[in-house]
Amino acid sequence: MKRRLFLAGTVVGIGLPALISPARAQADALPSWNDGPAKQSILDFLRRTTTGGSRDWIPVPERIATFDNDGTLWTEQPMYVQVMFAMDRVRALAGRNPQWRTQEPFKAVLTNDRDALATMGEKGLLEIMAATHAGLTTEEFRQAVLDWLATARHPRFRRPYTDLVYQPMLELLALLRANQFKTYIVSGGGIEFMRPWTERVYGIPPEQVVGSSGVTRYELRANDRPVLLKEPKVQFIDDGPGKAEGINQYIGRRPVLAFGNSDGDQQMLEWTAAGSGARFMGLVHHTDAVREYAYDRQSPVGRLDTAWNEAVRRKWTVVDMKNDWKVIYPFEMR
Amino acid sequence: MKRRLFLAGTVVGIGLPALISPARAQADALPSWNDGPAKQSILDFLRRTTTGGSRDWIPVPERIATFDNDGTLWTEQPMYVQVMFAMDRVRALAGRNPQWRTQEPFKAVLTNDRDALATMGEKGLLEIMAATHAGLTTEEFRQAVLDWLATARHPRFRRPYTDLVYQPMLELLALLRANQFKTYIVSGGGIEFMRPWTERVYGIPPEQVVGSSGVTRYELRANDRPVLLKEPKVQFIDDGPGKAEGINQYIGRRPVLAFGNSDGDQQMLEWTAAGSGARFMGLVHHTDAVREYAYDRQSPVGRLDTAWNEAVRRKWTVVDMKNDWKVIYPFEMR
Repeated sequence: MKRRLFLAGTVVGIGLPALISPARAQADALPSWNDGPAKQSILDFLRRTTTGGSRDWIPVPERIATFDNDGTLWTEQPMYVQVMFAMDRVRALAGRNPQWRTQEPFKAVLTNDRDALATMGEKGLLEIMAATHAGLTTEEFRQAVLDWLATARHPRFRRPYTDLVYQPMLELLALLRANQFKTYIVSGGGIEFMRPWTERVYGIPPEQVVGSSGVTRYELRANDRPVLLKEPKVQFIDDGPGKAEGINQYIGRRPVLAFGNSDGDQQMLEWTAAGSGARFMGLVHHTDAVREYAYDRQSPVGRLDTAWNEAVRRKWTVVDMKNDWKVIYPFEMR
Repeated sequence: MKRRLFLAGTVVGIGLPALISPARAQADALPSWNDGPAKQSILDFLRRTTTGGSRDWIPVPERIATFDNDGTLWTEQPMYVQVMFAMDRVRALAGRNPQWRTQEPFKAVLTNDRDALATMGEKGLLEIMAATHAGLTTEEFRQAVLDWLATARHPRFRRPYTDLVYQPMLELLALLRANQFKTYIVSGGGIEFMRPWTERVYGIPPEQVVGSSGVTRYELRANDRPVLLKEPKVQFIDDGPGKAEGINQYIGRRPVLAFGNSDGDQQMLEWTAAGSGARFMGLVHHTDAVREYAYDRQSPVGRLDTAWNEAVRRKWTVVDMKNDWKVIYPFEMR
């Protein structure tokens, strides 16, 4: 549906440039985006790369689009959702692990030391993930994630975390898919934490989710039933340079479009930019303290500093949430 | 095209079961397969899982089919193609690495000790791969693979290795895709050795290739040009239990169909079989010494022993190459 509208807009825009502005004809494709340079740069990129005969046309198999998750597709403040999940797991398992009371990063969780938690980074998070989920099978873990998401609520918005996804980005994902782009998540978060719900929430199937991972071990149980047991050992950290490495390892193609929001996405954007042909690099800048959060260079979670400098220098698209987005969350539209 | 034929056959088969046999109506879908239990089990599985209203119908997103590569999609004798490639690399780089003359597994290559090479297993191969490709960027490595494939010839058939793919399996891959299955390779071989050519040869894009991998490192070169440098360190061995782990890590869904040919595929088949609903597990049994090779329980390359026992016990499909396949290679049809 959206695809038909978008293509129709494109044809009109090319045929009658003086009479109808392409941006106006295509307005329906991204209804939650205000007109402005960010929206325009997205629509321009799509028109240039998907119009037959265009110098910048991209063959369909090469239409790979990668998105960071935390802070790019959903809210990452006051701390990563996965940290919230891990903290609840630590609390639930603390009775069986008395040594955690004096051992970081577990101590920070049990004493509710939010500053220590916010600054422990992906690596500390993965340590907690590994320790609290070792001994679970992949299927048990999947169920634990779904059970938690069904009851956990965001401390400020008092809603399920999966309600706190960005409506304008959902529209962008849908528009890309309507134009035969394959949409991927490339996140520092745990791959098995995201896969149970990304298809329902974002329309992104598990096989298009790249993330950090722990080692699993194949084991035959009663009646020769095989399981994959999660071991307390980090396998891969999909953050910073790891995002370029993860894209190469999991996808094996270089993206033509990438969207992030923090310094952890810088190398993914650089890797995307370094390919030949038309490219789109975007950053979500969190500027809206009223409707969401405002943070950038000094934030312990989702710091945007060196990547911002590079975006300005290289003229990548920077989305100003406050000014570029009409609504933040889908529930604002109901 | 094949899809229309197959669906037409399905409808006819259901509507007029007494008049036209479904197998006959669908004969065109797998023209290089002789009629028999193997072909019939494939067509039965497809009919049951893709016919609307069938008790065994599988939703499209769950239609994940995984194939081993060496010995399942192309010839793996007298040794893995990737070993041939690695041997040529070792020879080319021996002058710069004099210590290899006394150091296994390199010594075996330089002295042409084929028995030692054939038995060194995936791990030895990956050691050679890591050592001979360290220092190359992923793009340089891709080019080295393509350059080698363009000139290397199989010692018996005197043809490019990519000619030595199995025509009946190409037909099966195409038939599955026509029925909206996503076809994947899950191979013990190197992921970066396969991805440069699998789309052209099998119709399987790089993002649907899972394999063993080495560590890469992100590096900025002159003019801030980023590269991924291949390091001399194994990251993941996608063989045996690693195939179930790799499927979970890369795909995040359990396959409904899996095809292998050796004990290295046993856990992939077990993992596939353990899901709920209709499943297909298949093994290619190399029984044709005249047209290809005949080997199983005692073979140093592609040993088929415990997986064969399990296939017989659990009634998985075993394809007898000599009797089930009309032709082996595409060039036989020209």
